Amino acid sequence: MTNSFNDISVPLLPTERVDDLLTHDLRIIQSDEVFSFSMDAVLLARFASVPPRGRVLDLCTGNGVIPILMTTRTKASIEGIEIQPRLADMARRSVALNGLQDQVVIHEGDLRELYKVAGHGVYDAITVNPPYMPLNGSDLKLNTHQAMARHEIGCTLEEVIQACVRLVRTGGKVSMVHKPQRLVDIISLMRKYRLEPKIIRFVHPRAHLEANMVLIEAIRDGKPEARLHPPLIVYNEDNQYCPEIMDIYYGAKEGKS
Amino acid sequence: MTNSFNDISVPLLPTERVDDLLTHDLRIIQSDEVFSFSMDAVLLARFASVPPRGRVLDLCTGNGVIPILMTTRTKASIEGIEIQPRLADMARRSVALNGLQDQVVIHEGDLRELYKVAGHGVYDAITVNPPYMPLNGSDLKLNTHQAMARHEIGCTLEEVIQACVRLVRTGGKVSMVHKPQRLVDIISLMRKYRLEPKIIRFVHPRAHLEANMVLIEAIRDGKPEARLHPPLIVYNEDNQYCPEIMDIYYGAKEGKS
Repeated sequence: MTNSFNDISVPLLPTERVDDLLTHDLRIIQSDEVFSFSMDAVLLARFASVPPRGRVLDLCTGNGVIPILMTTRTKASIEGIEIQPRLADMARRSVALNGLQDQVVIHEGDLRELYKVAGHGVYDAITVNPPYMPLNGSDLKLNTHQAMARHEIGCTLEEVIQACVRLVRTGGKVSMVHKPQRLVDIISLMRKYRLEPKIIRFVHPRAHLEANMVLIEAIRDGKPEARLHPPLIVYNEDNQYCPEIMDIYYGAKEGKS
Repeated sequence: MTNSFNDISVPLLPTERVDDLLTHDLRIIQSDEVFSFSMDAVLLARFASVPPRGRVLDLCTGNGVIPILMTTRTKASIEGIEIQPRLADMARRSVALNGLQDQVVIHEGDLRELYKVAGHGVYDAITVNPPYMPLNGSDLKLNTHQAMARHEIGCTLEEVIQACVRLVRTGGKVSMVHKPQRLVDIISLMRKYRLEPKIIRFVHPRAHLEANMVLIEAIRDGKPEARLHPPLIVYNEDNQYCPEIMDIYYGAKEGKS
């Protein structure tokens, strides 16, 4: 099977489909059995500070959703790294499907080793939507693709943060989305590795509910002082997306270049 | 000058006045030149988990507002410690004014030394509204009373946290109100001293503004996993207090015993 979009054809593997990213006419290859992105990735792609030019890296890039979305916000060169060959291949085909090969490069490999080939401190900004769950053996009925995307199998949170600090330049920014349950781990580890959290924003499904996501932007060797942005509320009392969520998902369409 | 309330008279010093705490007919002695409590203290007194019985301690107690407010929520014995003699005296007179001497005891002294007389791990819960600002010499035009309440003159954040972990029992709770700018310091130090942050809540003046307070409850030797409570919004779009703030300030009146 192949999919054709803007006169570009890419092959699709079994269970794969092409979804609309709802903004700038972007498309993405997904598969419920292998990998599909969630709201976390979309929020991170909008939350992260990205330089207008320079080099940006997305760790644990999965099907490449964050690099692809970030092309709407910057002319920077964007790289993604993914350890699973099946997902890295999916991401490359999504990049091709959108004709973004000149701006986005997907590496297949281990983020813990990347600094050995890329060098230290070479990126201006890094984004990461890491696996959320520590490896405690409780929920490994998932298939390998899903398990690796959700559990700290390929790398721990500490290894992710260590990789970030090796790869980002002094003064460069690292943006992460994660679960609030891990906030204390994240903040303690970031400070341990000299990534100073500067902007923190919590995402609440509704205004009266606990947060279920946290967005954090840290600066390598930044001055200690965090700003706590207004809460991002997903649904209003009428079960509709709140205006800011609508804007994040659909708003950029109007600014299409 | 004296003030008489419920047939109890206490002397007032120059510049002092008696304010209504708006709940349970409680009164408090304040002075704009020496110390007046702010919303932070009221929110902490409601946010903190307090055991129904046992021993509770309030560090940096100022004019005793937190111990006095907490008497509406528990039968526990409540102690407060304040390093400034002038404020400790004010707090004792407020305790007397409310006839709470059997439940509330105010110590005058240095929180860093308290464990030497009180012992290790003797409190079931500790609350603290510490001075917010690091000592950087930028804003010391205040008089001594005000400066000590606002700046880390008498003790640093690290010393406050160290005192908490010495004084609270294993499994006991430490609740703090502070500025979000110091969140990373607080979380890193709490973990360093084995106080695990378990509940975090941010206070935003309005729903679309950054947080200006953070409430944190930690458990000594607790299991790592924080819950991020719904945002507490102070004012609604009509510049009125939101219902939860109204409830915190006035609501307990209906439940008056």
